[in-house]
Amino acid sequence: MKKTIAIVGMGEMGAGVAARLIENGAEVITVLSGRSAASVARAQRADVRVVPTDAEMIEQAEAFLSILPPAKAAELADRIRPVIQTAKPSVVYVDCNAVAPETVTAMAAKFSTLGLPFVDAGIIGPPPKPGTSVTRFYASGGDLTGFLELNSYGLDVRALGSAPGEASALKMSYAGITKGFQALATSMVLGANEHHVTEAFLNELRTSQPGLLKWIVSELPRMVPKAHRWVGEMEEISLFLNSERGSSEMFAGAAKLYEAVAADNELGSDSPRIKALDQFFAQEKGDV
Amino acid sequence: MKKTIAIVGMGEMGAGVAARLIENGAEVITVLSGRSAASVARAQRADVRVVPTDAEMIEQAEAFLSILPPAKAAELADRIRPVIQTAKPSVVYVDCNAVAPETVTAMAAKFSTLGLPFVDAGIIGPPPKPGTSVTRFYASGGDLTGFLELNSYGLDVRALGSAPGEASALKMSYAGITKGFQALATSMVLGANEHHVTEAFLNELRTSQPGLLKWIVSELPRMVPKAHRWVGEMEEISLFLNSERGSSEMFAGAAKLYEAVAADNELGSDSPRIKALDQFFAQEKGDV
Repeated sequence: MKKTIAIVGMGEMGAGVAARLIENGAEVITVLSGRSAASVARAQRADVRVVPTDAEMIEQAEAFLSILPPAKAAELADRIRPVIQTAKPSVVYVDCNAVAPETVTAMAAKFSTLGLPFVDAGIIGPPPKPGTSVTRFYASGGDLTGFLELNSYGLDVRALGSAPGEASALKMSYAGITKGFQALATSMVLGANEHHVTEAFLNELRTSQPGLLKWIVSELPRMVPKAHRWVGEMEEISLFLNSERGSSEMFAGAAKLYEAVAADNELGSDSPRIKALDQFFAQEKGDV
Repeated sequence: MKKTIAIVGMGEMGAGVAARLIENGAEVITVLSGRSAASVARAQRADVRVVPTDAEMIEQAEAFLSILPPAKAAELADRIRPVIQTAKPSVVYVDCNAVAPETVTAMAAKFSTLGLPFVDAGIIGPPPKPGTSVTRFYASGGDLTGFLELNSYGLDVRALGSAPGEASALKMSYAGITKGFQALATSMVLGANEHHVTEAFLNELRTSQPGLLKWIVSELPRMVPKAHRWVGEMEEISLFLNSERGSSEMFAGAAKLYEAVAADNELGSDSPRIKALDQFFAQEKGDV
């Protein structure tokens, strides 16, 4: 019998994970009520079977994966937990979202009180593509067996310790480096542009920080269309960090910056800031 | 006749620049009233000639370099400007400090009103060492001739445009990348440590971000003893960046973080955070 996994939602990551599981012999089901047209289309393309209700989804599943923007994670857990409790208490709930350890341990506690299995997971890497995945799923929690079984279905699931929160802490630490640095770099590219020193700035980076410059120019153009999704993640990292030492404030700032970049991106090339970023990338790549 | 340059103060950068000029045939003079014992010792070691008053210093000098912590920059300009005006209006005042363009253009305006020459400079690189310097002095302002002459005395002075503020904007943009990223990395190393995921964090960085990890491990250990000096610079970068977009807030946070790291550093190995940072470096270098 095929292994059946339930996934909500069908964003790029959710649909990518679904397609990966399906091409490795699993069946993936989802509920699409209230989801966007884009999510519906992604579910179809990935051959995900749509079921009408949460109860039917949970009855048929062996594991449930929550793959959502961070701000939606707790709400979905509250929606699905009573369904699992009533319909099928053996289903393991896996929260794969980029949330602070504080956020996920609060979620885990509600499952634990009811004796329901819960796994904290952190995804590092891009959405899997057909035929390939370089993406790691770190997991922590009391019983990881059900989730680790997905290693036989094309996922790279790696066990950390038994405490929910560890996987999320790892995800936060890592994303703080990569997405935090992109927020900084965006700030400095725009600051240099506003003060008309972009060329000298680029030359100085080429000379003394060629590695960082290469990283920035390869990552930043892909950030712009994703900035709106990173706002909530920066807020979670802000929560993750000790609030009285300034670190937390750095990521509160990064959240605001990504919000502003997302607004710029809506304007497209009408935005002088998007234009400045594009020019910076083009100049370094020798396109201008 | 020897070229005579006045420099205040005799921190590591000021004394390093002095020694560089001296070994290339210039004479360097300074005033040491109110400076620390360490500054006095550095001036002696560099063979800087000490003069008793600001007036004598300016009378004997052809150029004056201000090389100080950013918070002291405006105060020194206000102290030296009337001396230049009275004693020798031909002396060019060069502000080499890591301050925001807003800070330096306010300084420049006061000189300009009196018709006194003023150069905005930004230093990128470490203090010069005997026999060698990789450090760049970017300069902007109406008349750069006097400062550019120091290219004949072992400095690498590079002209930007005619507006004071440009050199500082470049310095801010660059330091935002390098020192901003070190603040982020410090935050994440400490966050990972607090949540007991350091080993998994290191492994993930080794796999997917080897370049950034190498950079972090080479830069961060040198940051710790300098953190106290970077607080003011982060505040200036915060001022430099557009305040309503979060970037400014990121650097206000970085300033607080460096303040906290400086306090940790006072405690030395009694500080659990310094211990955590040291362990992270040692683990990556294979020392443990």
